[in-house]
Amino acid sequence: MDIKLYHHIKRFVDIDTKEYEQIIGYFDPVTLAKKDTLIYGGEKCDKIYFVLEGCLHAYFIDNNGAEKTIQFAIKDWWITDFLAYHHRSKTDFFIQAVEVSEVLCISYAQQQKLLSCHPVMDSYFRQVYEIGYGAAIKRLQYIFTYSKEEIFYRFRDEFPEFVNRIPQYLVATYLGLTPEYLSKLRSKKVS
Amino acid sequence: MDIKLYHHIKRFVDIDTKEYEQIIGYFDPVTLAKKDTLIYGGEKCDKIYFVLEGCLHAYFIDNNGAEKTIQFAIKDWWITDFLAYHHRSKTDFFIQAVEVSEVLCISYAQQQKLLSCHPVMDSYFRQVYEIGYGAAIKRLQYIFTYSKEEIFYRFRDEFPEFVNRIPQYLVATYLGLTPEYLSKLRSKKVS
Repeated sequence: MDIKLYHHIKRFVDIDTKEYEQIIGYFDPVTLAKKDTLIYGGEKCDKIYFVLEGCLHAYFIDNNGAEKTIQFAIKDWWITDFLAYHHRSKTDFFIQAVEVSEVLCISYAQQQKLLSCHPVMDSYFRQVYEIGYGAAIKRLQYIFTYSKEEIFYRFRDEFPEFVNRIPQYLVATYLGLTPEYLSKLRSKKVS
Repeated sequence: MDIKLYHHIKRFVDIDTKEYEQIIGYFDPVTLAKKDTLIYGGEKCDKIYFVLEGCLHAYFIDNNGAEKTIQFAIKDWWITDFLAYHHRSKTDFFIQAVEVSEVLCISYAQQQKLLSCHPVMDSYFRQVYEIGYGAAIKRLQYIFTYSKEEIFYRFRDEFPEFVNRIPQYLVATYLGLTPEYLSKLRSKKVS
């Protein structure tokens, strides 16, 4: 039994290992090779994913056919198209492993059963979403406030390991930069 | 007793009017004149607001001293700096009435008591945040995908009443445009 989700839940609500044994039964563990895809754009989105190890990203294809990363999820983050998930509607997003990853997956139907049997999980997800929602608005504030160059430097200072671990072209699209421009910024750092 | 929040809660969870009478007791009604401010940047953020009537916006002051609207909230929307609220930390945001407004306000301490006595509200807020979080990521996708001109036209087509009701300079900062550029776009529509 994986206890990583247990530790994450315990940050927000009070459960014991006995209740966790029941809770974990609603999740499916999934092992992903690099570039394995969990959801394809155009499909119905009815699952959410918790990253145990590795890194996932959600991307969409823009009007020019380019892949643009809209979200990353590393250890202890939830990822999906939350709006499509809420409505069980089609998503524009592809959710893919950036590197070898271990995730826990839960379907909408299973989550409803989980919440009904373990209402404490409503409190857990409320708090997880509160942080995610707040962070998404903060990200908008950064985009409105800082130049692309400043955003890269702030991102690198806040998440140095991340910038080194993730392929450069993904970091570039996440920050709204071209890979060429990001390459210039990184070489500035070295010089 | 205001029943607008009752109808909103009923969209997501099952409560009766008797339980609602207890729930509404945790909220304070606030009447705002145009430009009245609920939270100032630099203050601790420990309240969330539900708009019954009118319109609020959250803005921050950018490096050039300009006010930039990061969120709007009209009828049936919740607004605050959710990340600061989660941590009861200082916010950069000012939350202000755009027009005469009626809101319900709840403090973090009161919300904790509400959730403890009425756990069904954990499910309500989980779902409200799920939609808000999903919508914030969709907004990022729009910013990454469309030109500023396209974003304005899409926004106008989706929320025509909104664009006519809200002062033009607020719509402009929300969309990341200058008021002058927005003015040009609007005049194109007329010609």
